[in-house]
Amino acid sequence: MPPPLRDIVDPTRPSAAEEARTIAAATNAGTLASLTATGDPWASFVTYGLLESGPDAGAPVLCVSHLAEHGRNLAADPRASLAVVAPGGGSDPLASPRITLAGVVRQPAGDELAAARDAHLAAVEAAKFYIDYSDFSLWVLRVQRVRWVGGYGRMDSAGAADYTAAVPDPVAPLAAGAIAHLNADHAGGLAEMARALGGFPDTESAVCTGIDRYGLDLLVSTPRGAAYTRVGFGARLDSADELRSATAGLVNRARAAGTPPGRP
Amino acid sequence: MPPPLRDIVDPTRPSAAEEARTIAAATNAGTLASLTATGDPWASFVTYGLLESGPDAGAPVLCVSHLAEHGRNLAADPRASLAVVAPGGGSDPLASPRITLAGVVRQPAGDELAAARDAHLAAVEAAKFYIDYSDFSLWVLRVQRVRWVGGYGRMDSAGAADYTAAVPDPVAPLAAGAIAHLNADHAGGLAEMARALGGFPDTESAVCTGIDRYGLDLLVSTPRGAAYTRVGFGARLDSADELRSATAGLVNRARAAGTPPGRP
Repeated sequence: MPPPLRDIVDPTRPSAAEEARTIAAATNAGTLASLTATGDPWASFVTYGLLESGPDAGAPVLCVSHLAEHGRNLAADPRASLAVVAPGGGSDPLASPRITLAGVVRQPAGDELAAARDAHLAAVEAAKFYIDYSDFSLWVLRVQRVRWVGGYGRMDSAGAADYTAAVPDPVAPLAAGAIAHLNADHAGGLAEMARALGGFPDTESAVCTGIDRYGLDLLVSTPRGAAYTRVGFGARLDSADELRSATAGLVNRARAAGTPPGRP
Repeated sequence: MPPPLRDIVDPTRPSAAEEARTIAAATNAGTLASLTATGDPWASFVTYGLLESGPDAGAPVLCVSHLAEHGRNLAADPRASLAVVAPGGGSDPLASPRITLAGVVRQPAGDELAAARDAHLAAVEAAKFYIDYSDFSLWVLRVQRVRWVGGYGRMDSAGAADYTAAVPDPVAPLAAGAIAHLNADHAGGLAEMARALGGFPDTESAVCTGIDRYGLDLLVSTPRGAAYTRVGFGARLDSADELRSATAGLVNRARAAGTPPGRP
């Protein structure tokens, strides 16, 4: 891939902890790894919600039957991890962002029990039919270690403190629609951004491949070949409502910076 | 739920082993549970193909990097399990059929290496870009134990021999389309089947909720309430091409049996 010819003005991206919190918040089902009585690893499909706040904010809350193998496993050994794949993946599974949240489970009690119950019901509507059955228990997975894989060649780890402090990206639920809109109706603006702000003044065309609260990922075509770059908003967006004006702001800033000569 | 008023003529269903082989063959990605160096359970997203034949027919073939945590885990301890969720689920995750295949992994060699490589590449097209990289290895998961969950209240276990001997249902890839067609265009025929063959002569209407090589699942409405029943083809279908005539045959058999009085 050709390198950028100038500095990328704002290369800010979400941290691995933020990526992980965003993926965890994007769906309500994943796969649990627990330990059988003989210490073998047992993978099983589960639903979950996330604790919203407190010292274990972002911790998955499971609701499983002790009649099921994973329920017996958790009761006998609290070590567990949960793998979650971001929804909406394409035809290549390994291009999908995904995470592993590893730690230990506990059965919540007192105030935490009420919060855990609410968190699970908010995420898993059908749980209202069985959450109060006597064979079902809630389990909070206290996250000790996080692994995030963003796709090919994008991966990082995060610790418990960063994961707990991170906030799900408010832009994520709108990202797919915004990407489609930008590519369909604003291809020229994307190319201007890539030339003026993305470090590739020789951009011939640009396609948006990702959007988050910090900026856009662009795939640029240049006479030197194709490359990925980044155009940051210059500030963190705190609401999805800010996405439209932030993106328009990028086009304006690219134009104000003046489009440099198209060839180096 | 009201019970049937007569015997169900052919209640045959796929076995748990057949259900599991069919789900495993329906997609190419799942979640692996492996063991970390400290014996903790590690859940991670993986792609797989299936060995087609031989003593481990149906065994998942993984292709993972030894730079990745799960690759290091498998190299240090061969115990593993793979959870796979049937594609195409609806809004309630726990209604989705899913399986766990548990056993031990080995690195294939000789003839098995070639078969494993072919199996993985046939299922995971993008693997051609990395399967021959020096940090990637193939692993065959020898299945020792199978757990199948078909949805709420439908679940069973299977042993290795039954799983290996089972064949993926050839009707499965067409099931969704066939169900939609039957419900849209043949609601009367479904009700006739339920009355004459499904044990519910008081059926007012029937909806097809599942199709496999052995028959149809029907949700029937009766004056006594709603119930699920089964209408078997009377023989196992060995090709998806047989589905249309087998279904038409059920309607003809229901009519030949004569529709019993609509009320008990």
